[in-house]
Amino acid sequence: MPSPAVPHIGALPSGERDAITDVAGVTVGHCTLDEAEVQTGVTVVHPHAGDPFLQRVPAGAAVLNGFGKSVGLVQVEELGVLETPIALTNTFSVPAVAEAQIRDCIAMNPECGRGLPSVNPLVFECNDGFLNDMQRMAVRGHHYRQACAAASGEVAQGSVGAGRGMSSFALKGGIGTASRRVPRPGAGRHTVGALVLANYGLLPHLVIAGRAVGPRLEAQLAGAAPAAEPEKGSIIMLIATDAPLDARQLRRLALRAGAGLARTGSVFGHGSGDIALAFSTAYTLPLRSEQPMPAVALLHDALLDGLFRAAADSVEQAILHALWRAESITGRHGHRRPALSELLRDWPSDTFAHPLDPHP
Amino acid sequence: MPSPAVPHIGALPSGERDAITDVAGVTVGHCTLDEAEVQTGVTVVHPHAGDPFLQRVPAGAAVLNGFGKSVGLVQVEELGVLETPIALTNTFSVPAVAEAQIRDCIAMNPECGRGLPSVNPLVFECNDGFLNDMQRMAVRGHHYRQACAAASGEVAQGSVGAGRGMSSFALKGGIGTASRRVPRPGAGRHTVGALVLANYGLLPHLVIAGRAVGPRLEAQLAGAAPAAEPEKGSIIMLIATDAPLDARQLRRLALRAGAGLARTGSVFGHGSGDIALAFSTAYTLPLRSEQPMPAVALLHDALLDGLFRAAADSVEQAILHALWRAESITGRHGHRRPALSELLRDWPSDTFAHPLDPHP
Amino acid sequence: MPSPAVPHIGALPSGERDAITDVAGVTVGHCTLDEAEVQTGVTVVHPHAGDPFLQRVPAGAAVLNGFGKSVGLVQVEELGVLETPIALTNTFSVPAVAEAQIRDCIAMNPECGRGLPSVNPLVFECNDGFLNDMQRMAVRGHHYRQACAAASGEVAQGSVGAGRGMSSFALKGGIGTASRRVPRPGAGRHTVGALVLANYGLLPHLVIAGRAVGPRLEAQLAGAAPAAEPEKGSIIMLIATDAPLDARQLRRLALRAGAGLARTGSVFGHGSGDIALAFSTAYTLPLRSEQPMPAVALLHDALLDGLFRAAADSVEQAILHALWRAESITGRHGHRRPALSELLRDWPSDTFAHPLDPHP
Amino acid sequence: MPSPAVPHIGALPSGERDAITDVAGVTVGHCTLDEAEVQTGVTVVHPHAGDPFLQRVPAGAAVLNGFGKSVGLVQVEELGVLETPIALTNTFSVPAVAEAQIRDCIAMNPECGRGLPSVNPLVFECNDGFLNDMQRMAVRGHHYRQACAAASGEVAQGSVGAGRGMSSFALKGGIGTASRRVPRPGAGRHTVGALVLANYGLLPHLVIAGRAVGPRLEAQLAGAAPAAEPEKGSIIMLIATDAPLDARQLRRLALRAGAGLARTGSVFGHGSGDIALAFSTAYTLPLRSEQPMPAVALLHDALLDGLFRAAADSVEQAILHALWRAESITGRHGHRRPALSELLRDWPSDTFAHPLDPHP
Repeated sequence: MPSPAVPHIGALPSGERDAITDVAGVTVGHCTLDEAEVQTGVTVVHPHAGDPFLQRVPAGAAVLNGFGKSVGLVQVEELGVLETPIALTNTFSVPAVAEAQIRDCIAMNPECGRGLPSVNPLVFECNDGFLNDMQRMAVRGHHYRQACAAASGEVAQGSVGAGRGMSSFALKGGIGTASRRVPRPGAGRHTVGALVLANYGLLPHLVIAGRAVGPRLEAQLAGAAPAAEPEKGSIIMLIATDAPLDARQLRRLALRAGAGLARTGSVFGHGSGDIALAFSTAYTLPLRSEQPMPAVALLHDALLDGLFRAAADSVEQAILHALWRAESITGRHGHRRPALSELLRDWPSDTFAHPLDPHP
Repeated sequence: MPSPAVPHIGALPSGERDAITDVAGVTVGHCTLDEAEVQTGVTVVHPHAGDPFLQRVPAGAAVLNGFGKSVGLVQVEELGVLETPIALTNTFSVPAVAEAQIRDCIAMNPECGRGLPSVNPLVFECNDGFLNDMQRMAVRGHHYRQACAAASGEVAQGSVGAGRGMSSFALKGGIGTASRRVPRPGAGRHTVGALVLANYGLLPHLVIAGRAVGPRLEAQLAGAAPAAEPEKGSIIMLIATDAPLDARQLRRLALRAGAGLARTGSVFGHGSGDIALAFSTAYTLPLRSEQPMPAVALLHDALLDGLFRAAADSVEQAILHALWRAESITGRHGHRRPALSELLRDWPSDTFAHPLDPHP
Repeated sequence: MPSPAVPHIGALPSGERDAITDVAGVTVGHCTLDEAEVQTGVTVVHPHAGDPFLQRVPAGAAVLNGFGKSVGLVQVEELGVLETPIALTNTFSVPAVAEAQIRDCIAMNPECGRGLPSVNPLVFECNDGFLNDMQRMAVRGHHYRQACAAASGEVAQGSVGAGRGMSSFALKGGIGTASRRVPRPGAGRHTVGALVLANYGLLPHLVIAGRAVGPRLEAQLAGAAPAAEPEKGSIIMLIATDAPLDARQLRRLALRAGAGLARTGSVFGHGSGDIALAFSTAYTLPLRSEQPMPAVALLHDALLDGLFRAAADSVEQAILHALWRAESITGRHGHRRPALSELLRDWPSDTFAHPLDPHP
Repeated sequence: MPSPAVPHIGALPSGERDAITDVAGVTVGHCTLDEAEVQTGVTVVHPHAGDPFLQRVPAGAAVLNGFGKSVGLVQVEELGVLETPIALTNTFSVPAVAEAQIRDCIAMNPECGRGLPSVNPLVFECNDGFLNDMQRMAVRGHHYRQACAAASGEVAQGSVGAGRGMSSFALKGGIGTASRRVPRPGAGRHTVGALVLANYGLLPHLVIAGRAVGPRLEAQLAGAAPAAEPEKGSIIMLIATDAPLDARQLRRLALRAGAGLARTGSVFGHGSGDIALAFSTAYTLPLRSEQPMPAVALLHDALLDGLFRAAADSVEQAILHALWRAESITGRHGHRRPALSELLRDWPSDTFAHPLDPHP
């Protein structure tokens, strides 16, 4: 029997892949570690095909809840650019991945940290310690490099890459992605894409497309699932767009991830490092001041509302994709997180099919 | 036929009044101006019965979208305390109310600005220019004083005080309030209350208790309502609690207002000044450094989650109260905003009665 | 006998007027109130000759110490633009001036707050309550308008405009301005100008061009001056530049005002609202989104150091100008602040003439 | 001939050791790597003798210029506490030290990242790439542990620990420390201590105790020193106090480090990651919410000015100590940084002895 399909969030259409890679030039790669107690990995988002250290994309971040160990945000806030691919991994593997980013940048730019400035690693994290033996620090530099090398426009979702060991709402969480198209004033359209690493949420609070399904799912799980741990998860929300925005505008865009997140039942819990970062691929800024700066006509702020909605919808959609695509995982100490799809198996296929309206 | 009652948001119980005044000591007063083209007013929230300049309550603010003209936040962020009652009014009346706050403080503390520091007015605003001839600046100092004098534990809601001319989702908006009780570790409970000035939102996006009712309401309104204006509203969200929190924790609490707001369909639109402020009544800090500072045992951060959820739920509930309690108003240029209750008149009384679950 | 001339701060040359108006298009106007107990006023800085509501200049602010009652910064931080001339006045006159800014904007743009967004008043303040009977709120809207109308490229300094009643280091403070030229990579040069409203500092801490002159001046004053009050002053530091910077870069530039301020002996005292704002005249951004956005090639961040030093030097120089140009004032309750020039009368004319070097 | 002694900055007395360890409980340890091209190390500051993960000290940070790769600040800003010793090292060694902090925390708290939250590494850095072959990433986890184990109340200064390879003003920089005593209202006194990792500044701008000695030193160096590189340094400024302050107040205290820094000639250059962090040892906050929270009577904000001045003076003094105590180092590629003491050898011993006053 077909179980319910993922509902489409909002009125905006998605891009071709419904993925962050619908923003031209963006690619995503994973490296997944799956060995008994080690259930973890690395995910990498490349903003473009070139060297991000030499050609920087503008970026802005919004920290909804700073209970998190991500590295690189101090400089992003000051300079408003990325210098590396964006890496995602588990909390205790942040240093290993950051060091790999430094080594890779040196390999491509031998004067990095000498004649050239040093590079700013950018690594986000969630705590996958329920399923993964995080204390082993199994992720090392070569895993980051594998993820980089694997990057493409096709984005595997669910229990892959950094998402391998992540939990959400006592279910299996992980990687999700989505995109939305926004009409551009005049002609054409802009694309907004999101990729999330979902590792947050307590089951009673789960809301899917407006429906408070948490309590019912909790009843289904009763007896089978381990007792709920207090929330000590997190969610990382990356947003890409091809609209010409600057760092200030991108910080505004990143903040709207919080609206999408809230609609799934989160109130940005104390122990959850909820962090969003947005970047634009519309132009790049050169590392070297001898090179000419691009002449950029930014989008007028009064035209941001479509992008704001696209960001919120993409994030909510990406979270749903993470839940839907995840497979059940048993990991450390026999801990298990069931896939949402498993639990929905006997639900009517049209459960989430129609817009939520009290007079259907 | 009874129209649908306001649904109760979330699993936490409300306080006795389901109002911000369930936090002991907090009072609210309104002064409403209702004269043809002038549909506006002032609302005042007193944190306690004493002189707030001498006995300051700790406070923290979260600016979700800073397209707003509120005054006083720079100092709140630096010092983490309130010095006046909190005032709400329309955008162009902020200066008149701020000046009244200064004059009142001087009246009570003749050395204010001389031997004593000067006072920090704290006035929040939304733009009620659709219904109210804001350019007349009809609100003057004595209206602020009337609102102060009228303060009590009973909070009138809807088209009153600063809410008189406000619009939300092309409907009549205004003042709403709500509260939640949170079990305290050990014994007893904490109270969180919210009061909102709701003047934001486009009708197609309205969500009530998870139900996307906007499009249906828009269809009901078609032909009768003026064409939608681009969003240039705002929402002010005040949160009070009796839990012992400091300014840092209160800023965290204030940010959770955004989760409640998002669940009603907002993505913190570009033109909407979405600002939250939280304060605690658990202790006060003396103006004069000669007086002893209180010895305060704060709530542990790891125990904040209940308060966070209460803040989000109270804000969402307060928004619904604002919509439900508002009466239709016709104001400037014959502009009219219909009451939600009017539109819901023929809807089944149990529309929002049951928790939203796909398998009821 | 000639008393010491103002030393030139730093190695960069000043512009023709050594004033913020060396940045082309910037004008400054004052309205001074001088009537017995009323010693106060308004100062206005226009970023350009057009309507700042329609053609906005980019801006960024840095709050070094937020013990201040300035209005307008929340929106400047969010949108990164100015919408009005920048106004300076005493603390209790902020509302009157803010209301005048609103009224003026409406007069020029009748749809302001209706079809158009409402305007964001931007008023900075210091507390001149020692010399001025601030509680009278003598500054009203027409004084703001007089200051606007009086604006020109010639900037009166010292005890004028908003500076009329200000004190610094127990001396007469007030308005000061200065500018610096910075070589531009390739060819040409950029100009950075500063204007300060100086009302901060305790005399023992005063440093002039590296020389700790405070204690000696204090000895000169002993017996003649009223006992030192605890610091409850402030300083507002405005910076203009013709370099093409965006809001993020301008916030960085504004922060460097703090370096200039620190070199005069300030540690950003608790009671001193030390706030800096920087704007660029290199381009404007249209209010209306229908108008085309300019294509701007910003200055590369790696080329900012010259501007940073120019900002710090201009601010320090402007503070010295404020002290040097001020005349002694006797105001409220017979309180008197002596002019620095009066105290320096018998000092050698070359006191500050040479660069400060231990081996001259 | 005796060369000039380090001048005492400001009017406040120093503590017994004139070191951050004058704040009771604070200890400092170094591990220095000195092998040809490798000139670098680690410095650790312990806030107290216990486990900082279990008993957290309150802390606040101020980012004056965020061109830096420090890790841990996102969580410090959110939660206002430290969880580890504070580590300093070179830019490319941040990941190795962060990983060591994680491993050490796990060793002491086996449930870290499982039943307990994961730990927040806190590592600050400067770029020592001129003297040190930073690309070798010679610092590994055991060096961090050696620095921890070596911690005591006696603080070696200059070219030690993380300061081994650092440069300041084209001279040898490194580690410096200092302290000040501040009278407490009523009776007793508070101590403020600073420790800096100085790696910033261009020689022409150097100011010592108000004297612009940079140009003269540059003349002395001409021909001998390598051509000045563009500034790509940084300074980390740590401040400890035994005054009972909370995170908000500590952020305010940390910002005053900028005043001390500015007085040495810095304008917080674009390429210089200038970051300050302050913590209080007056009380600790338990990790576990089951443990009671301390009842703390904070210092009244109006009494902060003495601490603010002590912070600025301590930082300036610590910078001078770093310059004075440093020994000349020749490192990578034969690059050499001369010690200031070497250059001052023939200067009069009383050069900086007297307070700087134009009428001595």
